[in-house]
Amino acid sequence: MPHRRRVFFVSDRTGLTVEALGTSLITQFDAIDFLRLTLPFIDTVDKAREAVQQMNAAHQDTGKRPLIFSSLVDDAIRAEINKADGLVLDVFERFIVPLEQELGQKSQHAVGKSHSAGNAKDYNHRIEAINYSLSHDDGVTHRGLEDADLVLVGVSRSGKTPTSLYMAMQFGIKAANYPLIPEDLEANRLPPSLIPLKHKVWGLTIQPDRLHQIRKERRPDSKYASLENCRYEVSAAEKLMRQADIPFLDSTTKSIEEIATTMLHEAKLVRRVY
Amino acid sequence: MPHRRRVFFVSDRTGLTVEALGTSLITQFDAIDFLRLTLPFIDTVDKAREAVQQMNAAHQDTGKRPLIFSSLVDDAIRAEINKADGLVLDVFERFIVPLEQELGQKSQHAVGKSHSAGNAKDYNHRIEAINYSLSHDDGVTHRGLEDADLVLVGVSRSGKTPTSLYMAMQFGIKAANYPLIPEDLEANRLPPSLIPLKHKVWGLTIQPDRLHQIRKERRPDSKYASLENCRYEVSAAEKLMRQADIPFLDSTTKSIEEIATTMLHEAKLVRRVY
Repeated sequence: MPHRRRVFFVSDRTGLTVEALGTSLITQFDAIDFLRLTLPFIDTVDKAREAVQQMNAAHQDTGKRPLIFSSLVDDAIRAEINKADGLVLDVFERFIVPLEQELGQKSQHAVGKSHSAGNAKDYNHRIEAINYSLSHDDGVTHRGLEDADLVLVGVSRSGKTPTSLYMAMQFGIKAANYPLIPEDLEANRLPPSLIPLKHKVWGLTIQPDRLHQIRKERRPDSKYASLENCRYEVSAAEKLMRQADIPFLDSTTKSIEEIATTMLHEAKLVRRVY
Repeated sequence: MPHRRRVFFVSDRTGLTVEALGTSLITQFDAIDFLRLTLPFIDTVDKAREAVQQMNAAHQDTGKRPLIFSSLVDDAIRAEINKADGLVLDVFERFIVPLEQELGQKSQHAVGKSHSAGNAKDYNHRIEAINYSLSHDDGVTHRGLEDADLVLVGVSRSGKTPTSLYMAMQFGIKAANYPLIPEDLEANRLPPSLIPLKHKVWGLTIQPDRLHQIRKERRPDSKYASLENCRYEVSAAEKLMRQADIPFLDSTTKSIEEIATTMLHEAKLVRRVY
């Protein structure tokens, strides 16, 4: 623990972007044990000085220079962080100059232009999409299903709810979801209310043993959770989706981000929120 | 439209990180009208060649070189994209060499080390947190409220649900939410079931005219949505939170990301998911 290499994510805003970027880069060095620390809202020189003290202390404690990924728009704040005894990689510094040259103008150096609630239209799209997805979760209602951008189907616990909510939250996409229940599987056809919407239906599948694990945590010793039943449901659902010509993805081997992004692009949906 | 400067986000994975990074950079050039296009899962040289054709066509169509933000681990694919007739800014290329020098080892150049479902522990934390937040949305139940990492309070439509779901999805934080209803406001005290949990309660507030707008879309001409009632509820809720010594944030002026990040850090919660 004391020897874990410290990685700082520093931002004048939330730090989410620089965390994602830095995380994707350090995962390229599997053999090293990193400890990540995020310092968001570093928007004054004083806060930057405190951050530098923390970074220098990390060097002292571990005997290794920390890695510092930063996104700082203000030159004075960035200059302060650059004094830290570590490897500072600032995305703003590295990218803004080539962009200014290419675009033939100076950047505004204004903090907080993205992710800001100032963008009320984006905010409204998100809230509307989240409310839509919540009220069309798990086949709760057929009403308004025609307003969906996308309708997800799959057996219970195949990952429909997290995927729908992610698409609503991140992309402003109205994603309904609808379970494939034993009656549908037996009849080997889509739930009747979905047939007119077939062009916007996407499926999720999951490996039976993973489904078995998930279900048995919720309802141990049930037929519902048994490996045999999970095998049957998954195989019947895949058969149904193939026959109905519904594209489907496997949530066992893909993250929520990968599933959502794949559907967004393959279904050629227009993202309403960035 | 034909003259909008094209911005491509290219990735061998989802493209989400490079989209967020590129978007935050181009918002620094307010006067320019950009059109953003994401090309995810560019994981073969053939796909890269197709992407380059699209980029060169964008140059032809607009008369301006496109901006190309990319995150490509594979050298051959990156070399292909570098042939595009545009400004290519690749995060991997720009950051991996200084990281290799600092860490004294070569990176693995392995695609898809982050965001991968391979990380089953992260996935389980997310799903568990999302299920928790959904089943503790809007004060649905008191049961298990003691397991929450955070309990959000606020008047109806102050932004509690999106914030709870965001924290669950992005951070794996179990965030319950509980409405402040007229009885609580009149009595000027927290809902009784929350009093023992006070140390993990956070408030949300909202400007009355914004609340009025949101509510009147749902229930036009109701007392609930009237500006007068919104003013009363917000002012009474803020008074209650101040008196109960509950920290609170204003969702009118902050994005979901900003609210969630601020709470995460100020409440010193440990993020379970990256």
